[in-house]
Amino acid sequence: MKQQQSTDMASVHSYIDQHKTQSMETLIEFLRIPSISSLQEHAADMARAADFVVQQLRESQMEHVKLIHNGTIPMVYADWLHAPGKPTILLYGHYDVQPVDPIEEWTTPPFEPTERDNKLYARGATDDKGQLFAMMEAVKSIMDIQGSLPVNVRFLIEGEEEFGGVAIEKYVKEHHDEIPCDAVLIADTHMLGMGMPSIVYGVRGILYTEIVARGADHDLHSGTYGGVAPNPLHSLALILANLKGADGQISIPGLEELAYPVTKEERGWWKRYPVSDEQRLRYETGISVFPGEQKYSLTERMTARATLEVHGFIGGFQQEGAKTVIPAEARVKVSLRLVPGQTPENVLPLLEKRVQELTPAGVSVEVRYLHGGLGMVVDVHNPFIEAASKALSDEYQHETYYLREGGSIPIAALFSSYLHVPIVFAGYGLPDERLHAPDEHFNIPNFYHAIHGTVRYLENVASLSK
Amino acid sequence: MKQQQSTDMASVHSYIDQHKTQSMETLIEFLRIPSISSLQEHAADMARAADFVVQQLRESQMEHVKLIHNGTIPMVYADWLHAPGKPTILLYGHYDVQPVDPIEEWTTPPFEPTERDNKLYARGATDDKGQLFAMMEAVKSIMDIQGSLPVNVRFLIEGEEEFGGVAIEKYVKEHHDEIPCDAVLIADTHMLGMGMPSIVYGVRGILYTEIVARGADHDLHSGTYGGVAPNPLHSLALILANLKGADGQISIPGLEELAYPVTKEERGWWKRYPVSDEQRLRYETGISVFPGEQKYSLTERMTARATLEVHGFIGGFQQEGAKTVIPAEARVKVSLRLVPGQTPENVLPLLEKRVQELTPAGVSVEVRYLHGGLGMVVDVHNPFIEAASKALSDEYQHETYYLREGGSIPIAALFSSYLHVPIVFAGYGLPDERLHAPDEHFNIPNFYHAIHGTVRYLENVASLSK
Repeated sequence: MKQQQSTDMASVHSYIDQHKTQSMETLIEFLRIPSISSLQEHAADMARAADFVVQQLRESQMEHVKLIHNGTIPMVYADWLHAPGKPTILLYGHYDVQPVDPIEEWTTPPFEPTERDNKLYARGATDDKGQLFAMMEAVKSIMDIQGSLPVNVRFLIEGEEEFGGVAIEKYVKEHHDEIPCDAVLIADTHMLGMGMPSIVYGVRGILYTEIVARGADHDLHSGTYGGVAPNPLHSLALILANLKGADGQISIPGLEELAYPVTKEERGWWKRYPVSDEQRLRYETGISVFPGEQKYSLTERMTARATLEVHGFIGGFQQEGAKTVIPAEARVKVSLRLVPGQTPENVLPLLEKRVQELTPAGVSVEVRYLHGGLGMVVDVHNPFIEAASKALSDEYQHETYYLREGGSIPIAALFSSYLHVPIVFAGYGLPDERLHAPDEHFNIPNFYHAIHGTVRYLENVASLSK
Repeated sequence: MKQQQSTDMASVHSYIDQHKTQSMETLIEFLRIPSISSLQEHAADMARAADFVVQQLRESQMEHVKLIHNGTIPMVYADWLHAPGKPTILLYGHYDVQPVDPIEEWTTPPFEPTERDNKLYARGATDDKGQLFAMMEAVKSIMDIQGSLPVNVRFLIEGEEEFGGVAIEKYVKEHHDEIPCDAVLIADTHMLGMGMPSIVYGVRGILYTEIVARGADHDLHSGTYGGVAPNPLHSLALILANLKGADGQISIPGLEELAYPVTKEERGWWKRYPVSDEQRLRYETGISVFPGEQKYSLTERMTARATLEVHGFIGGFQQEGAKTVIPAEARVKVSLRLVPGQTPENVLPLLEKRVQELTPAGVSVEVRYLHGGLGMVVDVHNPFIEAASKALSDEYQHETYYLREGGSIPIAALFSSYLHVPIVFAGYGLPDERLHAPDEHFNIPNFYHAIHGTVRYLENVASLSK
């Protein structure tokens, strides 16, 4: 079987190798567009990025290429359905990126893609433009050489992933019967390490909130009122310190009980990883002490335990110098990563209740839901995941590992619920590629592996009986 | 005595009344200058404001009018010393103002002075341009009518008060023998309430710091690292929650022991106040529950107890939307108001020690000193304060109260230490004039009372034997 695939696809793989420069140039063009979905001032850039995707899919001879306006920012849809009797794969990615602040910490500007040490530095390089574009480039390469694909494909590419927009959720809920498929392929995850191909079988969910605290009806001078006035910033500090202690223990009654237990098989996989989490983390983050729940392994804490993080405070004086203000209102952005069993819907009321309990006298507090997404664990014992595992092993000449990822890909749970097909996370990112942070980058060899790997996957899937 | 003064000064008071419009127009001109000393981009405005002060003092026929360049922003000095055998009063004020954020909460722009309901709205209206200018206008009025003053005066007006600059401190320490005087008059405080003239006999000191917490060597994604990464923002929340509890109790060992005790005489004065602190606070702030140390009265908590306040966090994501970042570094601005006995020098090490004790594993923390000032209590039983008390009672036709103020006027302690003369705080602000906050304003009748009151004070002082 492998022999036959190699023969069929050999010319495609050669073509990919010969077109590396052109692929890279087109990726760079894509990365130059500052498609920050969460910031209103980038609305025009979002439209440019969507057009770029549309253009690429047209050049790949995809059909029904269209923008779907279903939320703030359009999705891009396309398909090619001329492989009768063969499975249909839905390819998912997102063309939007995270904000870039703190901008001053970037070595080179985030939207001027720059190559250093075989890495391409740019916002969105690994999350997710680089991985998405590799998937598109794989399909285009097959079409360029063969004029047809070995399987049917649908692209569904969104532009609201980084701010948790609801366009795609709404679309899948309402139109899932219009996009029937046999599996979903998602290239938005990472590998265990360089040269260690990995299938992600679990992701955490997320509940992202803003806690708003209000005290006096206007800002007060701490000289005049310090000692009697409620301080919303200090109140938020009290609440946060009690929501999660220095021991990393989250104190939200009922949260722990919702989580599905981790299986023995999983703990077995985790133990086989050839990398030391501690060494890896030291290298990736510069941290040598790892706070958090010490009774769980680092792997488990990063991927299979709920966490609560503070992302930023708003309110009071945040410039240089000194201002002695007690702000009337302060806000803090707080998210929980959720494990399967915990959902935004069942956790939000627990959080709200706990925050109210912890609110000190004199302030009123509100928990605002900003966005949420379900976590999930997929059963890896199915042919579509096995096909991906084989594609990756062949591409990297190394066994494929099974991982849970700590991040959230809410769309995955949505696809699973509405399309009832396996979700295949075959990602090409590396864990230290600084996604969401300054100096985000994508390993350049992995970019090309991603193109080849996707071609291999589609070919492997073609051999599955429908 | 009173009769004689009235006769001498009657024409001056008439002149002041006749020139109200002109005084107001000139004050408005002063207030239009956005002299925010803590923001570098207002450097040119600081120079304009200093020039304005110089010009006014020249028009008042003051002598030796000059800028003293002794720090970042110049002081203005002037004197008139032609009343031999009469006391010399040093008049102090500041021409710089606080920043204006949150700018969107101003009803009218902060540097477009606007009259509403007999109040003049502008940044600096009450703190301190309005009060400073009234003092200058009093001197000018006497000079305009009489061509001489009943006492000797020196003006020392600074431009670094609102950011705690050291120019004046350095100057007074090095040149105090060049500015001999018999008392200092400071118009930068408030009255107990409308129509209730007050002498402030005590102010709190301040220690303003920035606590910096560092975790990983770059920003991390909470999906990937949540559960093992130190979060500097959460660490600061833990530290702050432990530095001061929900009960308002500061937990810095050794701090309480440094404070000089409150006297029985003071508690007697406080009890005689005709206003209910609680009603006043409800009206001024919209607060109905007053957190803090419940075993002390509201007056004591606001003026004679140390407090710790959080003013703003820096770090992480502070814009609209959601970003799941764990910042590498976060900072928080924290100040302590100090009572006499507690000094920036003796409190800073206690704070630093406590912060280190409270720092959770995985982060390193540094307490940066931003600025500090001594609190003080003055003995009210001296002729210069009695002269002020009488001037105020006569002006308002109401007995004068003795107050401690919760705010910090570090220069007062400095003057006291180096000049060894009584410090007279005769202020005309009202407690609800939103100093340091949006919609700062100055009661217009009090502006004119301040001009008249200063004239009365100088005349009363003239009758004191030197």
